[in-house]
Amino acid sequence: MKKVKIGIIRTISFKDRKLIELHGKIIEKYFPDLQVISRYIKDQPRGIYDENTKRIAVPKIVELGSQIEVKEKVKAIIVSCADDPGVKELRKLLKIPVFGAGSSVAAISLSYGDKIGTLGITTHAPQIMREILGEHLVAETKPEGIKTTLDLMTNEGKSNALKSIKYLKKQGAEVIALACTGYSTVGIAQELEKETGITVLDAVIASGLFAWHFTRKLL
Amino acid sequence: MKKVKIGIIRTISFKDRKLIELHGKIIEKYFPDLQVISRYIKDQPRGIYDENTKRIAVPKIVELGSQIEVKEKVKAIIVSCADDPGVKELRKLLKIPVFGAGSSVAAISLSYGDKIGTLGITTHAPQIMREILGEHLVAETKPEGIKTTLDLMTNEGKSNALKSIKYLKKQGAEVIALACTGYSTVGIAQELEKETGITVLDAVIASGLFAWHFTRKLL
Repeated sequence: MKKVKIGIIRTISFKDRKLIELHGKIIEKYFPDLQVISRYIKDQPRGIYDENTKRIAVPKIVELGSQIEVKEKVKAIIVSCADDPGVKELRKLLKIPVFGAGSSVAAISLSYGDKIGTLGITTHAPQIMREILGEHLVAETKPEGIKTTLDLMTNEGKSNALKSIKYLKKQGAEVIALACTGYSTVGIAQELEKETGITVLDAVIASGLFAWHFTRKLL
Repeated sequence: MKKVKIGIIRTISFKDRKLIELHGKIIEKYFPDLQVISRYIKDQPRGIYDENTKRIAVPKIVELGSQIEVKEKVKAIIVSCADDPGVKELRKLLKIPVFGAGSSVAAISLSYGDKIGTLGITTHAPQIMREILGEHLVAETKPEGIKTTLDLMTNEGKSNALKSIKYLKKQGAEVIALACTGYSTVGIAQELEKETGITVLDAVIASGLFAWHFTRKLL
């Protein structure tokens, strides 16, 4: 089967190749028409979790995106961070479509319902998600004790995430948009969905859906 | 191949069975995993094009949606109108996901870009689309001389649609969301895209994408 090659930019510096490639593997599993090339930004072992870590990440993301468009001839690029760092900049520079995990998960949630709650690693959802969700954003939160994406990889992180979903549901949320791709790394969406009976949307899968759809005519 | 059965509600009373089933066929073509059952509302030969025609359509849509969930055991329902008539009401009543063509095309456009123009059959895009697009809506228009979806089925309608896209592009739109499913009936998105070099998103295909994605685990 001919596959469409796309690129994914991880916004964290993992040493473990398996961890670097994990989001790409998730997308390949859900969208077997895609082949995903993974790249990551250097010198940010804790990823992006505030304005400063975003600011220093953007030029690295733009550089990686520009490189893989030319060298790897990918047909689309995903920036795997719910803050969409570098997405606007890359869209201006590149000829291929660029998807951000944050705009993607916000967009998909609006197709499914109109009262959206966000679960991130900061109190507020990233700006791009707040912008897109607008008045449909009914509640936003983060699990207790979580500061960076790495904290989600602990049992305590997972159990606090469950509490957070219950809180969002209580606030009137009918759909949850996961506002950090660290939740994809731990693969928690289905688990949270099962335990709470509310639809929980994964940001990496959302971006994969759009990358698949917009590159399909190339198959 | 096992297919997932979904329902589509046409918000216009065509006599021609082929026209009634056309949107369903488009979805089956783009998403071969889906089998689409088509239903249409009665006594509205010109469809929905203002507040009054919407108001009288909603209870009919709600009734059709409720019927096909039970009788046809569909796994999702699409309301094929960019105004999302009856979508909120059906979501409250049904256990299955309900997608509106308007919210779907607004959502997909936000995954792809951040300056959206809408082309509908009314001066302003339908309320649900304006709500979702928010500050990302940079321009909205309708082709000259168009009042109802039927007017799109003429050569003049098509040529005026092309002029409208050029206008939207000039206003800064980087992506066009078609704000009437009548454009799907005439299949104009690709043609407009080719002639203007700007991405034009079809509302029926957008709703099909989400219906496919959210029913996939049932395959």
